[in-house]
Amino acid sequence: MSPAPDDCRFLKACRAEPTDVTPVWFMRQAGRYLPEYRALRQKHSLLELCHTPELAARITLQPVERLGVDAAILFADILLPFEPLGLGLSFAAGEGPHITRPIHEATQVLELPRVEPSTDLAYVMDAVRLAARALPPHVPLIGFAGAPFTLASYAIEGGATRSFTLTKRFMYSEPRAWHELMLRLAELVGAYLAAQARAGARALQLFDSWVGCLAPADYATYVFPHSQRALELARAAGVPVIHFGTDTAVFLPDFARAGGDVIGVDWRIPLDVAWERIGPERAIQGNLDPAALLAPLPELEQRVRDVLDRAAGRAGHIFNLGHGVLPETPVEALQRVVDWVHGG
Amino acid sequence: MSPAPDDCRFLKACRAEPTDVTPVWFMRQAGRYLPEYRALRQKHSLLELCHTPELAARITLQPVERLGVDAAILFADILLPFEPLGLGLSFAAGEGPHITRPIHEATQVLELPRVEPSTDLAYVMDAVRLAARALPPHVPLIGFAGAPFTLASYAIEGGATRSFTLTKRFMYSEPRAWHELMLRLAELVGAYLAAQARAGARALQLFDSWVGCLAPADYATYVFPHSQRALELARAAGVPVIHFGTDTAVFLPDFARAGGDVIGVDWRIPLDVAWERIGPERAIQGNLDPAALLAPLPELEQRVRDVLDRAAGRAGHIFNLGHGVLPETPVEALQRVVDWVHGG
Repeated sequence: MSPAPDDCRFLKACRAEPTDVTPVWFMRQAGRYLPEYRALRQKHSLLELCHTPELAARITLQPVERLGVDAAILFADILLPFEPLGLGLSFAAGEGPHITRPIHEATQVLELPRVEPSTDLAYVMDAVRLAARALPPHVPLIGFAGAPFTLASYAIEGGATRSFTLTKRFMYSEPRAWHELMLRLAELVGAYLAAQARAGARALQLFDSWVGCLAPADYATYVFPHSQRALELARAAGVPVIHFGTDTAVFLPDFARAGGDVIGVDWRIPLDVAWERIGPERAIQGNLDPAALLAPLPELEQRVRDVLDRAAGRAGHIFNLGHGVLPETPVEALQRVVDWVHGG
Repeated sequence: MSPAPDDCRFLKACRAEPTDVTPVWFMRQAGRYLPEYRALRQKHSLLELCHTPELAARITLQPVERLGVDAAILFADILLPFEPLGLGLSFAAGEGPHITRPIHEATQVLELPRVEPSTDLAYVMDAVRLAARALPPHVPLIGFAGAPFTLASYAIEGGATRSFTLTKRFMYSEPRAWHELMLRLAELVGAYLAAQARAGARALQLFDSWVGCLAPADYATYVFPHSQRALELARAAGVPVIHFGTDTAVFLPDFARAGGDVIGVDWRIPLDVAWERIGPERAIQGNLDPAALLAPLPELEQRVRDVLDRAAGRAGHIFNLGHGVLPETPVEALQRVVDWVHGG
């Protein structure tokens, strides 16, 4: 007899309950490293795949079949809410995202339309429903959204950046407009996550991928209350929430205090040190360097075992990378990692 | 009577001796934010400016006159040694550096020519001599070089990167060739720094700008011994050495143990926390977020005072940014920072 759905490994670990073996999934496990995904991308643009629930659901399932991971993550892009927000979104070949009408003036913030995710992003909810229905009961679907800071940085920069110059200038120079923007994004993101849970996502992840560009004091002032709000709204949906960021080592206690049943950390901090900082009662997700998957297998195995050793078999560890799977990653490396984490 | 040259503020702070006021200079203070620099760039490419000692020396002096900083830093680029190394170097307009013949195979490492910086980079030494001669005695010239890891990452990636995928793959897959490359770069960089000191630089800085992309254990294994070697060779020249990196918070004790009279830190860690980690007897340099210079002046002043408060007037603090001056920075903001740091 298969276990009750809530007794699956991944959800138990989210609640910091003991599991038979450590659950594992990979950020961006539905993506470019997979030949079957690349085959679809030959025929469709990234946005077409996102906009078509049948295709998004199919891509969501691909890594579950290939890798034997303990959770599926919805195929989508964190910037999809920019379309109903009227900011405009495109992806040039081989480039990152491009925002057509970035936010450069405080007045633009008040003109942003209200977004109702369950209708304005109905195609995402459809993809969630299709994927959730198709997945085996022991493999929960994770819904996700970008965190207010990470979304604001794209909205202001107009695309990827290394220095976050425009974002920080806006934050320092227009603090009222900044907080208004972050408040609106927090409400949007919270509602978006909750809607995904209602559509069938059994866990949610908030991605604050770029928040580590900030000084700890700036995180506390300009970001913390808004991440807290988004996480609070998401949590009301009644499923576990993972709060993920990179480069958060120094302000990790604050980051954890903002919320999340599970805290996701990157490879810049040893897992045991991170666990100490977020509090040992909290579940933790991470934290292999995605580049380690490009290493020879013995070297990779040693690194996987190091992460597991640092978790020391304690309840509440979800194995993952410290950021998304790199496109150059061999499928076999991910398969082997799943085996090792599952005790092979 | 003016003080003996070694009694100037900056050098005393490097030796962790008390000073009248906190010394201040800015990484990339000779660069794009200055109208007089941009005027020269209209007529010459970046490499032409670097290759022409008279122009490089003139640019080195520009911020000293404009800002009243306590040290000058040589105008040069960390990648200049790639020319005698045969890797090829160019800069496209508005883009970062481009390496014509990047290192992709282990065999390429053994084929790298030996570089003798004092002759192969003689034009740099000429620029050092000209700038050192032209500076007032209380404003020492700082010579600099890229650290082995940061140089290796450019040599392997062929330019700027966010993920350091090729670098890490090479490091993990070809550890012998990696260590050989790093050893050669350490010897080159050490000799290059020492030659700059002989030509008149009164302090030296090793820039490990991108080392923070690594997991702490990888820093220890793949980078530490080579940074240590480069710093040891530089230190033999008898002038103070600053060891700078960004995103080093978690492995800062190791980073400091690799060497340097002064440890340079970025804004991701509060200055007092960083000082505790490197040891209170060591001098420290930093650590205002360069983006803070784009803030309104009252906001900027508060941030400058926060850094100074965290230093608490202890001997051995050199005020600087946590990374280079951004091109968008208003000259006035830098002038005001110098005034505030000097007690205005």
